[in-house]
Amino acid sequence: MPHPLDSFFAPKSIALIGASRDIEKIPGRLLSMLRKNEYPGNIYPINPNYPDIDGLKCYASIVDVGVPIDLAIVIIPARAVVGALEQCAAVGVKNAVIISSGFAEEGGYSAAMQDQIVAIAKRSGMRISGPNAEGFLSEVQKVAATFSPTVDVKPGHVPLVATTRRIAIVAQSGGIGFAIKHRAKALGVAVSYCVSAGNESDLGAGEFLDYMVQDASTDVILLFIEGIRDVDKFLVAARRAAEVGKPVIVTKVGRSGAGERAAASHTASMAGWSAAYDAVFAKYGFIVSNDLDEAVTIAAVLTTSPLPKGDRVAVLTVSGGAGIWGADTVSMQGLRVPELSPAIQNQIKQWMPSYGAAGNPIDVTAQGVSSGGLQKTIDLLDTSDEVDAILVVLSLSSEVRMWFKEAELKPVISAQNKPIVFYSYTLPSLFARTELAKSGVVVLSGLTHVGVAMRRLVEVANFKLAPPAGRATLPLRDLSAHLQSATLSEFDSKALLRDAGIAMPDEMLVTARDELDAAVARAGFPLVMKIQSRDIQHKSEVGGVRVNITTKGEAFMAYGALLDNARKHRPDAAIQGVLVGPMAKKGVEIIVGTLTDKTFGPLIMVGLGGITTELFRDVIYRPAPVSAEEASAMLGALKAAPLLDGFRGAAKADVAALSRLISEVSVLAAQHAERIAEIEINPVLVHAEGLGVTIVDALVVRKV
Amino acid sequence: MPHPLDSFFAPKSIALIGASRDIEKIPGRLLSMLRKNEYPGNIYPINPNYPDIDGLKCYASIVDVGVPIDLAIVIIPARAVVGALEQCAAVGVKNAVIISSGFAEEGGYSAAMQDQIVAIAKRSGMRISGPNAEGFLSEVQKVAATFSPTVDVKPGHVPLVATTRRIAIVAQSGGIGFAIKHRAKALGVAVSYCVSAGNESDLGAGEFLDYMVQDASTDVILLFIEGIRDVDKFLVAARRAAEVGKPVIVTKVGRSGAGERAAASHTASMAGWSAAYDAVFAKYGFIVSNDLDEAVTIAAVLTTSPLPKGDRVAVLTVSGGAGIWGADTVSMQGLRVPELSPAIQNQIKQWMPSYGAAGNPIDVTAQGVSSGGLQKTIDLLDTSDEVDAILVVLSLSSEVRMWFKEAELKPVISAQNKPIVFYSYTLPSLFARTELAKSGVVVLSGLTHVGVAMRRLVEVANFKLAPPAGRATLPLRDLSAHLQSATLSEFDSKALLRDAGIAMPDEMLVTARDELDAAVARAGFPLVMKIQSRDIQHKSEVGGVRVNITTKGEAFMAYGALLDNARKHRPDAAIQGVLVGPMAKKGVEIIVGTLTDKTFGPLIMVGLGGITTELFRDVIYRPAPVSAEEASAMLGALKAAPLLDGFRGAAKADVAALSRLISEVSVLAAQHAERIAEIEINPVLVHAEGLGVTIVDALVVRKV
Repeated sequence: MPHPLDSFFAPKSIALIGASRDIEKIPGRLLSMLRKNEYPGNIYPINPNYPDIDGLKCYASIVDVGVPIDLAIVIIPARAVVGALEQCAAVGVKNAVIISSGFAEEGGYSAAMQDQIVAIAKRSGMRISGPNAEGFLSEVQKVAATFSPTVDVKPGHVPLVATTRRIAIVAQSGGIGFAIKHRAKALGVAVSYCVSAGNESDLGAGEFLDYMVQDASTDVILLFIEGIRDVDKFLVAARRAAEVGKPVIVTKVGRSGAGERAAASHTASMAGWSAAYDAVFAKYGFIVSNDLDEAVTIAAVLTTSPLPKGDRVAVLTVSGGAGIWGADTVSMQGLRVPELSPAIQNQIKQWMPSYGAAGNPIDVTAQGVSSGGLQKTIDLLDTSDEVDAILVVLSLSSEVRMWFKEAELKPVISAQNKPIVFYSYTLPSLFARTELAKSGVVVLSGLTHVGVAMRRLVEVANFKLAPPAGRATLPLRDLSAHLQSATLSEFDSKALLRDAGIAMPDEMLVTARDELDAAVARAGFPLVMKIQSRDIQHKSEVGGVRVNITTKGEAFMAYGALLDNARKHRPDAAIQGVLVGPMAKKGVEIIVGTLTDKTFGPLIMVGLGGITTELFRDVIYRPAPVSAEEASAMLGALKAAPLLDGFRGAAKADVAALSRLISEVSVLAAQHAERIAEIEINPVLVHAEGLGVTIVDALVVRKV
Repeated sequence: MPHPLDSFFAPKSIALIGASRDIEKIPGRLLSMLRKNEYPGNIYPINPNYPDIDGLKCYASIVDVGVPIDLAIVIIPARAVVGALEQCAAVGVKNAVIISSGFAEEGGYSAAMQDQIVAIAKRSGMRISGPNAEGFLSEVQKVAATFSPTVDVKPGHVPLVATTRRIAIVAQSGGIGFAIKHRAKALGVAVSYCVSAGNESDLGAGEFLDYMVQDASTDVILLFIEGIRDVDKFLVAARRAAEVGKPVIVTKVGRSGAGERAAASHTASMAGWSAAYDAVFAKYGFIVSNDLDEAVTIAAVLTTSPLPKGDRVAVLTVSGGAGIWGADTVSMQGLRVPELSPAIQNQIKQWMPSYGAAGNPIDVTAQGVSSGGLQKTIDLLDTSDEVDAILVVLSLSSEVRMWFKEAELKPVISAQNKPIVFYSYTLPSLFARTELAKSGVVVLSGLTHVGVAMRRLVEVANFKLAPPAGRATLPLRDLSAHLQSATLSEFDSKALLRDAGIAMPDEMLVTARDELDAAVARAGFPLVMKIQSRDIQHKSEVGGVRVNITTKGEAFMAYGALLDNARKHRPDAAIQGVLVGPMAKKGVEIIVGTLTDKTFGPLIMVGLGGITTELFRDVIYRPAPVSAEEASAMLGALKAAPLLDGFRGAAKADVAALSRLISEVSVLAAQHAERIAEIEINPVLVHAEGLGVTIVDALVVRKV
């Protein structure tokens, strides 16, 4: 299916605006890179100062070219860019990539020039990447529209290619994008595209991601972002990637205060709050990696492996210590390294000396290699139903010796039933990489990264896109009457939630002493009483809460005391009254909340209540709304999940009821995102299975 | 000062028992390696089949050599080894390293041969390394007593050396040991020694560690272990390393079930329980690393950096995205990346274009490099008191261009006031490594590893060896009367602890109904009653605990109910009586315990009590005994530490009293390690500062 960016990534003709004869400088290097990488289309250099460059006719202006141009690469001083783009638009150039810098990243007048670029794109329909971009590389189409030194072609260099499947790289930072490409290619991982987004005046990372998701030559996507600007396009692309099952490995920087500070100053983007990004990534099954080598290792494993059917790993080695290390590493990632059955062990033992080990890790020993045991064990494990993946741990530093014969290894790798991952504890030699590439093997060199990658592979295999929240979850209601005052009390908040359709405990606001009898009768003993005021945020701190009241006398004393305390601590607070309700039955204390992220809008959060949430930061976020199924998956991702599952002989908690509540709250936040900034239900008590949940306290915060 | 292993690591003469002319096989390779690495002493090949080898006279037997031999390298079939060693001992050979395998790792008769080797060492005083060892390399002394391919010298190869300080590698696995060496040297980190321990018949990893700790040519030690056998020597060496401040980076494998399974089968060693290893490592300030590249990165940073005075990092880059990534990475490791003062920012801004960033991360931009801004900023930051370390984030992939001039960089690096760490996001070229090595710079390539290394540097700087537990902590008492029965009840356990000198609550064991009045009077209300029986482990599960009893009537009813419940649930249990004591005041719930590790003996453990310990595995171990100071440091290392420090407005807990208790319990466990296997105090309630602690429940488990 054609994509609007086809002519951007596979242009039939390129105009190079600002072409130069000086290949030491960036403008000159661009032409040289295009030609060295054997761009097959026509190139039109544009520069009024030359009649020709490097054998190509050079034009004074784009208007002189006279043929249709798919892509203009613009590398001229910033002040000349807008004029050049106007000319491009006038002659119908389809796409432009602006390498020039000096726009939004400088602020002031320079930022205004970027606004003009946006306007040109909107008006003309010409698609524009950059400014301040490092351009892109299409390996498939042989388009090196970049000055990155990493795309330079050295005479006589034979590229290392071990994979048939390809990765695409989409990076807001060109430096990082091409560094990822550089490292991936050094491992022998084939690349389809590498594109840097720059200032994203028109084309953004989200739209580039969308291109890679639909691109048939791309199997795995690596995404490096500081902050997403084209959020809607990004979310569409993310969902599509999840739906078609194309893995996306994402690095999001600007996670720390310092990182965010720089992201704001450097890229002229508002760095998003990372929890929201992580929530979105989790929803769509993106693989988050904060390390370049780790990301590339995951990509290498994904491009060379079928998805595993389970989490059982065989670790195969020729060195005992290294095998143990391999087993430890995958175990620490939560994968299993099961002891093999006696039947398999006996088979393997035929192929190794007596001091080998067949239990798993399997150490066939160096002697086991020469006798063919290593290869035979790989063959056996690949067809065994006792393991789901194989980690081969070797020394591949030799520049002359190879443990494998291509004729034996290649057929197994080509038809592999499960991931077969190769790690060398010595630094792998180029010889070993090259020899093993012939069999389709990428040699990996960072053990922890390998363990993480094998774990991610299992997660990708298990990922299911959660169904959306159903329309029937919570009918849309007009809640504006509840959102008149600037702040809401617990009573106000609960009234809003009740009107929204969320089940709340039966409580009464007592506004005068003579109403207390009726309230006590309705609540029954034991009961709880709480002061209500829109001016008092923390009721406990003003002595505003009395729990476990068991007699009418206590209730009347408490009523007086609550009002007295409030008056004493907060004489200026307007008191609504005292909320009287039954004490909640016991249950697991959970906090459910929503908040609004500046990039992605409403998020739903769930965590274990009480002090633990804060101490162990055990909370899970997702973009709102979520279905009850997705809410249930959120609960499963909590470290405290066992508490809900009958911990230490306790009854299982009513996870179904809690999941429904989370879904309802999330739908409410999404429905009223324009008016509601935050909802906090803290705590909700989750009772035993079948007994539901009780909302103890709640707060709704209006948008200002 | 001379060390007993001097003649092992710096032999004046070497006999090569099993020398061969065939350099394709291991025996032949050993001679070739020795000579290629320019061993300066005399080599005496021993083999009855040759008159000479490679120009050296060859002897039929060691007894024919007739000159003193410092080191015999033994590479002959296993069955001939014992005889050859007897001859070595007879002629006074000082040391032997046995490369031959086929001993303990095979079991049976082969293992018995290893016992004979041990006997020869003991009897003769000859020190023996191996069997099944890969030998060692002394770079300083030019002794390549190993067949490892990694010590092969390629003609014309100029080694990359960036550091003047050197690392020593001690590894139980030769494959891993020499792989560490291989990777370290590829970075330009100088090596003093690399030694593999093999089966450790006589010389073990502990004694090798001891050598490296005292060795003047070694600055940092890398240790790879599966399980320590010479525990006493190891502990002496570990303490000495901590005392002299020589950093030890340790990798301990066999951490997972699978890893331990293989460690047991492969190396014929009992793999220790890793928590005990980690406790010992923590005590002596060892740097634990589970990844080879990470360990080497830490070593590289330690050999090139002075220790930082604090945790403030400046991140300096020429690429915005990479700088943010760097800042995120060190921040995630708990280091600070403070915004620089306006004064410093203004200075830096002179050296960069307007679109650079000076806040920190500092992006001088590519243009800032050509104008000298990068170098000037390094100079400025090195003398600034606003940061304690500098992380330089660059692309160093070019094979022709270099960002720095040696004349400018070398003087700063030679006199650097703080760590200046170089990371390249593209794969560093050999050209860049070589050029920067001239200034003493190691180029690092794994960002997460760099972040971890910088964090470890701060930890090394802050490490203080804890003072030992004083003799006065707990006087040694005869507790044997308490350890007569096979199992101890809570009452028995508390009696033992009380007699040992640990303050216990005032409780009474009521063995007959008519004693209850007195017990109630003594305890006062509210009180708690608990069934006591050596046959009942979990009192709660048999309805054996009643808390918060407030009247005499309740107490009598509880007494009857506790006995009834016990009889109903455990009719066969012998009942001691009912323990009556006051309800404890509120406090933070803590668990304190001791257990016995098969390698290191008694350990003390502390964690947050209640469900959290199990859910979040928030516990800290140390070898027992510990001083109160060390106990206090253990508490500080808990994730739950804020709970003791006045969490959310609560009073600070009595950490001093808790630390004293931990110290006392640890001393008790150490004093009676022969008789007591475990002590568990769960929970102890820690009251507000000055109000002490209350032991609620306790259990002592006898050794069987």
